[in-house]
Amino acid sequence: MSDKRRVVILGVGLHPFGRFPDKPAEDLAREAALEALKDAGIEYKDVEAGYCGWVMSQAGFGLRLFSELGQTGIPITNTELACASSSRGAMLAADAISAGIYDMCLVIGLEKMMRGLIPGAGAGGGAGGGYQTLMGMFLMPGAYAMMAQRHMHLYGTTREQFAQVSVKSHKNAVHNPYAQYRTRLTLEEILNSRMIADPITLYQCCPTSDGASAVVLCSEEKARQYTTRPVFLTGWGGATPIYSRDEPELSEGPTEVLAKKVYERAGVGPEDVNLAQVHDAFTPGEVLTVEKLGFCKPGEGGPFVWEGNTEITGSKPVNTDGGLLSRGHPMGATGGAMIAEITRQLRGQAGERQVADPKVGILHNAGIGGVNVMIFQT
Amino acid sequence: MSDKRRVVILGVGLHPFGRFPDKPAEDLAREAALEALKDAGIEYKDVEAGYCGWVMSQAGFGLRLFSELGQTGIPITNTELACASSSRGAMLAADAISAGIYDMCLVIGLEKMMRGLIPGAGAGGGAGGGYQTLMGMFLMPGAYAMMAQRHMHLYGTTREQFAQVSVKSHKNAVHNPYAQYRTRLTLEEILNSRMIADPITLYQCCPTSDGASAVVLCSEEKARQYTTRPVFLTGWGGATPIYSRDEPELSEGPTEVLAKKVYERAGVGPEDVNLAQVHDAFTPGEVLTVEKLGFCKPGEGGPFVWEGNTEITGSKPVNTDGGLLSRGHPMGATGGAMIAEITRQLRGQAGERQVADPKVGILHNAGIGGVNVMIFQT
Repeated sequence: MSDKRRVVILGVGLHPFGRFPDKPAEDLAREAALEALKDAGIEYKDVEAGYCGWVMSQAGFGLRLFSELGQTGIPITNTELACASSSRGAMLAADAISAGIYDMCLVIGLEKMMRGLIPGAGAGGGAGGGYQTLMGMFLMPGAYAMMAQRHMHLYGTTREQFAQVSVKSHKNAVHNPYAQYRTRLTLEEILNSRMIADPITLYQCCPTSDGASAVVLCSEEKARQYTTRPVFLTGWGGATPIYSRDEPELSEGPTEVLAKKVYERAGVGPEDVNLAQVHDAFTPGEVLTVEKLGFCKPGEGGPFVWEGNTEITGSKPVNTDGGLLSRGHPMGATGGAMIAEITRQLRGQAGERQVADPKVGILHNAGIGGVNVMIFQT
Repeated sequence: MSDKRRVVILGVGLHPFGRFPDKPAEDLAREAALEALKDAGIEYKDVEAGYCGWVMSQAGFGLRLFSELGQTGIPITNTELACASSSRGAMLAADAISAGIYDMCLVIGLEKMMRGLIPGAGAGGGAGGGYQTLMGMFLMPGAYAMMAQRHMHLYGTTREQFAQVSVKSHKNAVHNPYAQYRTRLTLEEILNSRMIADPITLYQCCPTSDGASAVVLCSEEKARQYTTRPVFLTGWGGATPIYSRDEPELSEGPTEVLAKKVYERAGVGPEDVNLAQVHDAFTPGEVLTVEKLGFCKPGEGGPFVWEGNTEITGSKPVNTDGGLLSRGHPMGATGGAMIAEITRQLRGQAGERQVADPKVGILHNAGIGGVNVMIFQT
């Protein structure tokens, strides 16, 4: 992307994640957006285009979130990619900024989750029943459990290694004022909680959450008016499944292929990464993803996590804010929350959960078949 | 956009609009997409990015439509802007192509509409009740009726002038094999049908529809491999409401401001336009929009339509394929269907509804508060 303009994350904001049954969606979004605008040092009238990640919105509701901030006539698009909706919105904003179409964009992510489990890729709904349904992947815990079981079979990964992800996640979230769960849990408590989909127990599942996130993206030129220490978005890309006749474990999947491409665009490698936000909707998410992002070899994710490498003090801190498991996972808001955490870490604003002097952060956000990878640098 | 690459509409495809209760969404989408790929002369593996306009899809379902065509790993985004979803998808694809990010993109638009009326901008749903609800704009016919009543009050527009839009629409759709309604109606039949929201009678409302559309967009350089007579997308843009303390009728609204901007980008004016696709979800849509696009002066839309200017044989043919009123309006599919009709007209492939030798076509697609305008040229 040498002929493209550089993109800066100028501001980030969050509404706390949790359950807010009496608070309208617009209020959650407005609070996150106003925090991001203040953080960026801009006003809403400076925004040239809006992108909204709101999975369960009805027709055109994305517009309403923005209209609460002002009616300035800007184009607004709801970008939906399930749990990866607001990071996809940020990627489209980055495409447009890098191409010189806009200088300043605002991405709002939002969700007020329904109760209970959400349907997965194979669900019926508006579409006909898919073949994934027939394979038992109707519900997300089942889909993650099957990946975990395969990993245990192939590599000897243990239940304790998966559960350790949740121990760390809860520990990190204690220091995150926006997190839904801020209580430490022991390995035993996690392993002994109710079984959901073997090997995934209740405390290895992300909660159902309400919340909002907001991100201001900006061209480098424009950003120089507002900050002397910009955080750059240096690489980004999206992918969907790649058909392979080989055993999936023996060939590279979409995340591995995508991560290599995005590393190349950013001009860095896994060895340069100082922190990561990965999609841990269920604990196997972290174990599998640290392999796919190249932090360790295929099959070594379990020991890698178990030995503490993904702790805040480890070599590759992962989900320093508690991740989906403890920060919470309001689908449309999650991507923006990941961007917010990496940005705050790279600025040194993460308080008691601060990683020591990070320069490079990577984001992995998955959304029912699709995946986004983004790299941020000081 | 002088430093940007030119964008070509390389292929278009439709699944007939109507009611298909026993046909899964994926089947509608696949048929439209395969028609567009064939029309473009490409295979699915040539597509580098996908955009999906499917308003009522659940989380990540846009991906499933594309996975029916192949699993090639490309990034896919569901772009939701209510009734303007697939034209917004095409605009984002055009942004990316003009910026050099992709050479070949596929946009799929789809909807299987629920029964009955759809909620408008003020609807409750996931969001809290909006102020529009309190103003009677909960349902779309009411919103259009209020605009129509105001137009009648200010300019003396008549019920007959609105109803004439539907007479023409049904006449045009007789020659469109993809249209939902292919029966002519008289002015009397339309005026005497059941009153829905005064002055809008039943036959002045678009039907509830199932259907799909697909559009292949391509860089000019790449398009030269496939066609010697490309249809270019020369200008495009989106907008949302602009707050004004003045009476809305006395100040320019978002569509007028946007249309001027897009005309300028394309390097043409209203006088150059040979055909238009406008958002006639209800008959007042055409009367008001011909004014906003500059075909006649403000307030003259009624006589302009009544005198036959928007007929296929008139000076500014509008909705030559029957429009939303008669072709049908499966929300997510509509924008793509508009692009398909303009493309076929500009290529001279519109059969008995062909406009004589058109060079410039304009698209106006509205989606609950948002609006898209696109200009196409031979």
